[in-house]
Amino acid sequence: MAIGTLFLIPNTLGTEDRLEQLSWVLPAATITQAAELKYWIVENAKTARAFLKAIDSVSSLCTPLQELVLLEWRGAAQNAKYNSQTRPESLLQALVDGHNMGLMSEAGVPGVADPGAELILAAHGLGATVRPLVGPSSILLGLMASGLNGQQFAFQGYLPNQNQERITRLKQLEAESRRLQQTQIWIETPYRNAAMYDACLQALSAETRLCIGVDLSLASESIHTYTLSEWRKRFPSEKMSSELQNRPAIFLLLA
Amino acid sequence: MAIGTLFLIPNTLGTEDRLEQLSWVLPAATITQAAELKYWIVENAKTARAFLKAIDSVSSLCTPLQELVLLEWRGAAQNAKYNSQTRPESLLQALVDGHNMGLMSEAGVPGVADPGAELILAAHGLGATVRPLVGPSSILLGLMASGLNGQQFAFQGYLPNQNQERITRLKQLEAESRRLQQTQIWIETPYRNAAMYDACLQALSAETRLCIGVDLSLASESIHTYTLSEWRKRFPSEKMSSELQNRPAIFLLLA
Repeated sequence: MAIGTLFLIPNTLGTEDRLEQLSWVLPAATITQAAELKYWIVENAKTARAFLKAIDSVSSLCTPLQELVLLEWRGAAQNAKYNSQTRPESLLQALVDGHNMGLMSEAGVPGVADPGAELILAAHGLGATVRPLVGPSSILLGLMASGLNGQQFAFQGYLPNQNQERITRLKQLEAESRRLQQTQIWIETPYRNAAMYDACLQALSAETRLCIGVDLSLASESIHTYTLSEWRKRFPSEKMSSELQNRPAIFLLLA
Repeated sequence: MAIGTLFLIPNTLGTEDRLEQLSWVLPAATITQAAELKYWIVENAKTARAFLKAIDSVSSLCTPLQELVLLEWRGAAQNAKYNSQTRPESLLQALVDGHNMGLMSEAGVPGVADPGAELILAAHGLGATVRPLVGPSSILLGLMASGLNGQQFAFQGYLPNQNQERITRLKQLEAESRRLQQTQIWIETPYRNAAMYDACLQALSAETRLCIGVDLSLASESIHTYTLSEWRKRFPSEKMSSELQNRPAIFLLLA
C-alpha cells in the first residue's frame, strides 16, 4: 500500500470570531483539505476540536467530529511528560497504513515556532509526501508589514526572560543586525510584552528601527515601525504597557 | 482628510493555471480586498494586470481593469534606471489624498525577498495603516515542510554566483547553522539551480540535512529533506540537474 501524505494545515492566529477569521486567513483549498482528513496530530485535542468545528461550519467534515482520530504531540521532551508516545514515528502509523494525515498547530502554521518539525522530519524519513498549505504566520505578516529588510532576516524565537540577560541579548541582536543588515525577529509570551518593550527602550540605540505588531490578522491588528527615539518620545512605557497587555505580539528590529 | 491604508496583497507563486491557484493560495478576503483597490504599486504593470484579470474572474473588480492606476516600483536604485520616481514617497500620493492603495509583488508576499520594504517603511513614515494580507510565501512554505528547525532560522536571499565563493558561503552557512542550531534558507535563480545543487554536494558535510523545495504551491510541487550522504547516494548531479531545470526552488539546511 502506498504511504499517505502529511498535510500541514494552518490554524487561525486567535480564537475570537473564528468563523469570520477562517475566510480572512485560510484559502478555500486549505479549508476543504482540513475537512477531508480523518487522522490528525495536534498540540491539544480540545482546542483542535474547536478549530475543526469551525471548519465544519464552512465545509462539512468528511468524518464526523466525534470519529476523528486526534493524537497529541508537544515535542519529544514534552510528550514524555504527558504520555508514552515520545518517538515521532509512533504517531505516524496512519501514514504508513496508507492514510493521509493532518498536522495542526495551536495557532498559525505547523512547523514554525511550534514543536511540529520533529514529526515532519520523521514523515520525510518514512518517504511520505509533505504538503504545506497556505495560512497565517505572525512572523511572515509582521515581516511583510514592518518595512524592515525582507531580503535578509532571522527569527530568534523567545529571548531570555531575566531582565539583565534580555537587555544583553537585545544589544547582541542589534549589533548582529547592524553588521549583517539583517532584520531580527522575536516573540514574547503576551504577559511579558510590556517588560520586553521596556527592555527595548533601555537597550536599543536611538536610530535603530523597532516594529511591534499586535493581534496580527485579527480585527484589532496594530503594526507600527518607528526609530527608538520616536518610540521613546511618543510611546512612554506606561502608555504601551496597557496597549500590549496580554495581546499576542511580534517584535522586529533593524539597526 | 484621513490618510489611506496600504494593503499588502500576495500574488500566486507561478502563473500556470492561475485561476485555480487563486483559491488554492489566497483566502477569500485577500481576493475581495484586491478587487476593491483602484490604486496600486507593482513591480511590473503588465504582469500585475494579468494577476488582476484573474482576480476579476473570481471577484469583479470595483474599478475596470483599464482604469486602474498601476505605478511601477523596483526599488530606489532600479527605479532610477527606468523612470524619475526614485523616492518611495512620490508613489504614495494617493494614500496622502485619502485613498487606499495596494502593493503587489511579482510572486508571493510583498515586502519579503522583493523591493517593497522601502515603500512600506515610507507608508509608516506618512502615518498610514499598513495591512498585510495572507498568501503564499515560498520561504514560509519551504520552512514548514522541511522538518528543519522552525524555532530558529535565517533567510539569506541569494548566495554568490561564482562557484568558489558559493562554496565558501555554503560552508559558512553550515558552520553558522551548527553553532546556532539555526536553519539557513536561501534562493537561487532557476537557471542556476543545478549549479547550486552541485555546490551543495561539494561543500556540505555528510550529516548536514538539506531540503530542496521546488514549484511550491503548484501542482508539480516537490519537497525533499535528506542528509547530504543520502542526497549524494540517491540523487547524483546528472539526475537532479534536469529535475531542477528552470523551476523555482528554495534551499534550506540544518547542520
